[in-house]
Amino acid sequence: MIKKHVSDVKSEQVAINGAQGATIQWLITDQDGAQRYVMRRFEIKPNGIIPLHAHPEEHEIYVLSGQATILSETDETISAQTGDILYVAPFEKHGYKNEDHHPFSFLCVIPLLPK
Amino acid sequence: MIKKHVSDVKSEQVAINGAQGATIQWLITDQDGAQRYVMRRFEIKPNGIIPLHAHPEEHEIYVLSGQATILSETDETISAQTGDILYVAPFEKHGYKNEDHHPFSFLCVIPLLPK
Repeated sequence: MIKKHVSDVKSEQVAINGAQGATIQWLITDQDGAQRYVMRRFEIKPNGIIPLHAHPEEHEIYVLSGQATILSETDETISAQTGDILYVAPFEKHGYKNEDHHPFSFLCVIPLLPK
Repeated sequence: MIKKHVSDVKSEQVAINGAQGATIQWLITDQDGAQRYVMRRFEIKPNGIIPLHAHPEEHEIYVLSGQATILSETDETISAQTGDILYVAPFEKHGYKNEDHHPFSFLCVIPLLPK
């Protein structure tokens, strides 16, 4: 069994094109023994954004704190806040924009796909 | 994209033999489109327990609130609290015992294994 605390995991800038004020922590990875899926934590500062993008990996998301607008290809405005759960399908466009005064943080689990 | 709130997901008693005061919510499942892994939320009341058990599914765990003793086969006493992250390997024995005065809640992601 592996145990660590979220505050012990290093935080990196999100590398997606156009991302601002957004960090990622890789909480559980293949380095811990995970072979099928990995858990990350994102934090987006007020006025921060991860622009609309897509990839083969689906997302299973749990919002830990704050609130944000979830960007999508539809005209519908989706807002997410603490305790919200999101499922983003493979190749579905998505993004996050924090227009609030508090950080927006969430867990996001993705599969480890064959390279 | 699917969005729901944790309070909208029904809560069921944990069916593991000997479990007491423990509930599970299936937050994201194959019903939502998930094909590889699913996200659940557990809550264990004060004095509640999920006894030592094992299964083929690994666990990727994030503690949302409270604190508990993590049961394992080793003599080491592991305590987990808010913001702790646990990785439990396939077939590794584990359990949870809440000896605190507040509920212990955590997310737990497991693979969807072939039946």
